[in-house]
Amino acid sequence: MPKLVVFGSVAFDSIRTPFGEANEVLGGAAVYASVAASFFTHAGIVSGIGKDFPKEWTELLRKRNISTEGLKIAGEKTFRWKGYYEYDMASAHTVSTELNVMEGLMPELPGSYRKAPYVFLANLHPEQQLHVLDQMDNPRLSILDTMNYWITNEKEKLMNLIKKIDILLLNDAEARQLFSTPNLIAAGRRALAYGPGACIIKKGEHGVLLFTEKEIFSLPGYPLETVRDPTGAGDSFAGGLAGFLAKAGAMDEKALRKAMVYGSAIASYTVEGFGLDRLRSLTNPDIQQRYKEFEKIVRF
Amino acid sequence: MPKLVVFGSVAFDSIRTPFGEANEVLGGAAVYASVAASFFTHAGIVSGIGKDFPKEWTELLRKRNISTEGLKIAGEKTFRWKGYYEYDMASAHTVSTELNVMEGLMPELPGSYRKAPYVFLANLHPEQQLHVLDQMDNPRLSILDTMNYWITNEKEKLMNLIKKIDILLLNDAEARQLFSTPNLIAAGRRALAYGPGACIIKKGEHGVLLFTEKEIFSLPGYPLETVRDPTGAGDSFAGGLAGFLAKAGAMDEKALRKAMVYGSAIASYTVEGFGLDRLRSLTNPDIQQRYKEFEKIVRF
Repeated sequence: MPKLVVFGSVAFDSIRTPFGEANEVLGGAAVYASVAASFFTHAGIVSGIGKDFPKEWTELLRKRNISTEGLKIAGEKTFRWKGYYEYDMASAHTVSTELNVMEGLMPELPGSYRKAPYVFLANLHPEQQLHVLDQMDNPRLSILDTMNYWITNEKEKLMNLIKKIDILLLNDAEARQLFSTPNLIAAGRRALAYGPGACIIKKGEHGVLLFTEKEIFSLPGYPLETVRDPTGAGDSFAGGLAGFLAKAGAMDEKALRKAMVYGSAIASYTVEGFGLDRLRSLTNPDIQQRYKEFEKIVRF
Repeated sequence: MPKLVVFGSVAFDSIRTPFGEANEVLGGAAVYASVAASFFTHAGIVSGIGKDFPKEWTELLRKRNISTEGLKIAGEKTFRWKGYYEYDMASAHTVSTELNVMEGLMPELPGSYRKAPYVFLANLHPEQQLHVLDQMDNPRLSILDTMNYWITNEKEKLMNLIKKIDILLLNDAEARQLFSTPNLIAAGRRALAYGPGACIIKKGEHGVLLFTEKEIFSLPGYPLETVRDPTGAGDSFAGGLAGFLAKAGAMDEKALRKAMVYGSAIASYTVEGFGLDRLRSLTNPDIQQRYKEFEKIVRF
């Protein structure tokens, strides 16, 4: 039985960056997050795939001790995303998105998933996220990600969902938009007023911020001279975070801070390679090493 | 005899932000930096002022134990800067700059300044900065700031100067421009190749990065919910940094890191008020308190 349920997109990604390109490779938020989480815990993925989804990719997930019982064929074609990054790597430019099987997907959770104590709802329609959350049997911790599209078009549904979850995860632009302020500290504090016990704001190369009732934690980005492909960084962070918390069985301030360092460590590896390349060869000692480097980088 | 010489502009600033405005108030890089340094050490300011410069302002500096022997009347009118900040406070929009006495100013250093072991050359023409540096009697540590205008128009002179100094201070956009890379880590490493023992990149709300031969230190910004006026933040940081180093009499990695935290602490106070307002009432216990808050914010 998985300890962590990961719901989100599974995709064929086509990516171009100044360092190269990849065509129709395995991607999607739920894939990055569950692979990142698999370094710490037994994750179960929930998503829809098409008949075109290669069996090797399902096998790849299974070999990482990720339950794929929730990965169901839901139509002909798997979700596809095509995009590119400019030289500054700051943000993805989408060329095309084909929702295919993800459109309106309302998956039924396998019985073995329902009692999992941890759940990560990666970016999708708030109705889809709520549908999955509602099938969970009183999880100990729920983490929610979203994106600008839902903030613009489904704000009410999103806000209702935010009231039900424990950790809200956003990037800096989304936090500014959702809480109508240019100041991230104000945004983080406002988020807590809606109910979540914690809000985490992802700032890309500038690191991550954690807001809890009484404290703020600020972790700088891992200093990387070469970023080959930023795809999946945010979801790797979230998966690493959720996976570590599931393993620790804790959700106090100290555990949250450590989890953010582990999430950042994994995300820093993700972007060193194209798509999932670097994560596929990553080891726990690699992660531990980068955790220690974070300690050296921030101490004074 | 001052332990730290601070060279840079002294100005009448006119500032507008969403939180208010101020007309012809005391400002300028050398003022912010020497006031910030004065919490730690005996600083001596070098600059030019006009006949219109109020005696009370010179008195204000003297009362903070800042030597003003190097503050000479050099013409009719003091340097003037007028600018505003938008709601996001990210960057200053200049409305007008009147160089007045600062134009081509080549000050002669008072004898008492020449043996000072520390010198901070705030942003000005590289020829003016070199002119001051050349009059120093083998200082133990020199810190250089600059800006995009000189990178664009006086790059050769700037690069020659960079070879002579110990710490290069830049903001993120300047670092990217000067070292022709969007990646700040690459930029910081490239800076060291020109000779400085350290390069510090200022990232505004995202904090500061320190590059030395073998290490990187990354300090996040102090989480402020309200920024009233960002004017002088960078120079307060530099002055606090230089002042702490002068007091510590050290320049090893540990001292540099602590100096950056102290510089950031003072800068975080600067932006809480308009112009010099907050710095004028600031106390050493205030600074110490924020230093301790930084410890809490980054620990994991």
